[in-house]
Amino acid sequence: MKQYLSIHDLPNIKETALEAIELKKNPLQFQELGKNKTIGLLFFNNSLRTRLSTQKAALNLGMEPIVMNFGAEGWQLEFEDGTVMDQGKSEHVKEAAQVISQYCDIIAIRAFAGLEDKAKDEAEEVLEAFKKYATVPVLNMESSVGHPLQALADAITIEEHKPAKKKLKVVLSWAPHPRALPHAVGNSFAEMALAHEDGFEVVITHPKGYELNPEKTKGATIEYDQDKAFKDADFIYTKNWSSYKEYGKVANTDTDWTISNRQMAETDNAKFMHCLPVRRNVVVADEVIDSENSIVIQQANNRTYSAQIVLKKILENL
Amino acid sequence: MKQYLSIHDLPNIKETALEAIELKKNPLQFQELGKNKTIGLLFFNNSLRTRLSTQKAALNLGMEPIVMNFGAEGWQLEFEDGTVMDQGKSEHVKEAAQVISQYCDIIAIRAFAGLEDKAKDEAEEVLEAFKKYATVPVLNMESSVGHPLQALADAITIEEHKPAKKKLKVVLSWAPHPRALPHAVGNSFAEMALAHEDGFEVVITHPKGYELNPEKTKGATIEYDQDKAFKDADFIYTKNWSSYKEYGKVANTDTDWTISNRQMAETDNAKFMHCLPVRRNVVVADEVIDSENSIVIQQANNRTYSAQIVLKKILENL
Amino acid sequence: MKQYLSIHDLPNIKETALEAIELKKNPLQFQELGKNKTIGLLFFNNSLRTRLSTQKAALNLGMEPIVMNFGAEGWQLEFEDGTVMDQGKSEHVKEAAQVISQYCDIIAIRAFAGLEDKAKDEAEEVLEAFKKYATVPVLNMESSVGHPLQALADAITIEEHKPAKKKLKVVLSWAPHPRALPHAVGNSFAEMALAHEDGFEVVITHPKGYELNPEKTKGATIEYDQDKAFKDADFIYTKNWSSYKEYGKVANTDTDWTISNRQMAETDNAKFMHCLPVRRNVVVADEVIDSENSIVIQQANNRTYSAQIVLKKILENL
Repeated sequence: MKQYLSIHDLPNIKETALEAIELKKNPLQFQELGKNKTIGLLFFNNSLRTRLSTQKAALNLGMEPIVMNFGAEGWQLEFEDGTVMDQGKSEHVKEAAQVISQYCDIIAIRAFAGLEDKAKDEAEEVLEAFKKYATVPVLNMESSVGHPLQALADAITIEEHKPAKKKLKVVLSWAPHPRALPHAVGNSFAEMALAHEDGFEVVITHPKGYELNPEKTKGATIEYDQDKAFKDADFIYTKNWSSYKEYGKVANTDTDWTISNRQMAETDNAKFMHCLPVRRNVVVADEVIDSENSIVIQQANNRTYSAQIVLKKILENL
Repeated sequence: MKQYLSIHDLPNIKETALEAIELKKNPLQFQELGKNKTIGLLFFNNSLRTRLSTQKAALNLGMEPIVMNFGAEGWQLEFEDGTVMDQGKSEHVKEAAQVISQYCDIIAIRAFAGLEDKAKDEAEEVLEAFKKYATVPVLNMESSVGHPLQALADAITIEEHKPAKKKLKVVLSWAPHPRALPHAVGNSFAEMALAHEDGFEVVITHPKGYELNPEKTKGATIEYDQDKAFKDADFIYTKNWSSYKEYGKVANTDTDWTISNRQMAETDNAKFMHCLPVRRNVVVADEVIDSENSIVIQQANNRTYSAQIVLKKILENL
Repeated sequence: MKQYLSIHDLPNIKETALEAIELKKNPLQFQELGKNKTIGLLFFNNSLRTRLSTQKAALNLGMEPIVMNFGAEGWQLEFEDGTVMDQGKSEHVKEAAQVISQYCDIIAIRAFAGLEDKAKDEAEEVLEAFKKYATVPVLNMESSVGHPLQALADAITIEEHKPAKKKLKVVLSWAPHPRALPHAVGNSFAEMALAHEDGFEVVITHPKGYELNPEKTKGATIEYDQDKAFKDADFIYTKNWSSYKEYGKVANTDTDWTISNRQMAETDNAKFMHCLPVRRNVVVADEVIDSENSIVIQQANNRTYSAQIVLKKILENL
């Protein structure tokens, strides 16, 4: 693998998930692979799981992680070409990406959507600029429109917890949240579930007006009745996102959509998933996240193996 | 050892101090013990000595330290159960602690007292929540009411610098400070000195109204006359704290209490100790901290060995 | 070597540059040298190249880098002696430097000029205080008046890219910038070029009023006509700085001084150099920095080998 910008960079989702499950049994077996290699973790946004699990994955592979918080420890980058840089931005990404490529063998980037300018967010300004100018592989630690390390962790978690059934029903459910959140996790989960080689039945449920980018959800059933959507589901994946149509707006905070036992009762004893951090009793009721069917902690644990299998594939190709 | 939340988690203070002194002679002798183990250093407050010495201790043991500044690099945690998390807090400690436990073999936490809500501070909200939910050992890097890594460093320092006497007189003296400071260091020093197997004479001196939590100082002599308290002392341990009774208030900034040669002259050639950082000529006069009797730098050095002996004991028990 | 505070701490600039070029061919050959040694990177100001390349250099030598951002992660230091520390500063550098020396084998410091108090900046308050109180070698990662790691990287870059000529003409050219910038890079480049054993012809060009500290530029030709200065040059080194005379003022933002093909056409096919970060189309036109003659990326790469050769020399002397 030469990069990991979206789930589509994986040769095969299911195969990769199975490889990660193997790796998890003996995570230190490839420590020679990353020896004397550095990974630069560039954070344009805050992070907990991604920050720690990606470092852990790199250490498991013998790599040296170097963390940099761009805002607090560096300065603002310019992403547009040809500008006269006489305002607040001190360095062009063209230099930054080339320079960092000389210090790090892999560059990992977290840069959320600003949720103000749809075209800019869709263009993946930061990630695409690093992809363009970096001379080493780039790893997406959540960008404007995708969070593929999360989606792979999700695939691993589904693989580990799936019931013995011919066709799994996987439901992505919007839930309320007080703040405007990006679409990255929802997008990447949908893309993963729709592209998964096992052929899931994918249902996405949300209030009207919360449709995700239709390009990301092609092949999924959109169901505006949440309880109906949950019917006989095997996995409930919950996540808030702001409106895509009325870009970045919070149009609905209807607590009826908070995941509770009411909706879970409709499922076929479904597992409950969420990428975390999660706001309890807003996104999901305590009764659900604290239930035996909740696998959010196991899911977070798989962030290490998701990152590690991806880094392994990239290292093997260096 | 399964955790280090307070000095009382040590099997024996003096023995541990002596072990640390042995370790100091050859700090790299247990490098295999921590190999492929990570320690997550979670800072909810700023730090210099603790930040650097705990990393150094971990490295000496072959561990990989991963540092996270919760405020600046992550987000606010919710600590109360059952709340509807629709305000400023993005993640419940229940998830955070369980998740971090999957990435780190030991979790170290710094979380100061807020000094606004006595009951909340006394309950050690942050530390206790991590203790409750973490599935790996927790290390206290200074909490609301205690700083046991400092207290152990203090015990090591006393062991190294004590005169040949049957019974040492150890004095904990309040000193003025412009800001309201927590009680953690004073508490833990008192607890250590009172529990020390050598049986110190422990005198605590401060203006009226600055009494520490009486549960922490049981067995100590409280003396409101500072000069009298210093009489024939072997160790003067100075630290400011805000009022415990009028919780978090700064009721007195009487510069008469600043440690100077006047009070030190009363002692039996006592060593001067302070945990640092210290405000010169407010807490202590230059003439004292710059004197030969000042051992504050040696004391700070022992922070490495205090952390290292504790980590060693925890690692041996993993 | 016992420290690296200025380019004059090098025994021989050219020799050191040649050694660095050798090291670059096999950067991991001295990994045993730094084993079990820590370098504390103390940032009083933001950084990208210095932050990453110094860590990379340390890792190449087998060292453990420990990064600390003093402002955000620690607290303000007092640098004056004898003050009553009852204001915003929590710790005296006298303690901080001694203490950190016990945790780190080398202390590296970045502390820019404040550009408000010339005498204070010239006194190198932060660097000199650490030099005075630290008990381990100190490395300058850019101070008020110098950036010697950059200057050595510049010497390496010149060595690698110089044409076969008897006497090189090296031009340091001021260029406009919207903000007031320090003199450190300009100073150190001038010092390096003037002290270089090959005997460069050194020309410095800037608008009147932008003269650098004459002590740093003794032996250089000052030429106020930029185009004339560029005549037959082999290397153009561009950098903005604020006024030294009217200390810290931005007296001129004349875009005529922006480096473009116009001035470059005067040179003898000169290479274009800049320490980065650079504001495109303010300091330098896209047409120049994007040209084949621009070696700014290679120059940034040499920051690793500049730091590594210096650290190697310091480690050999520990």
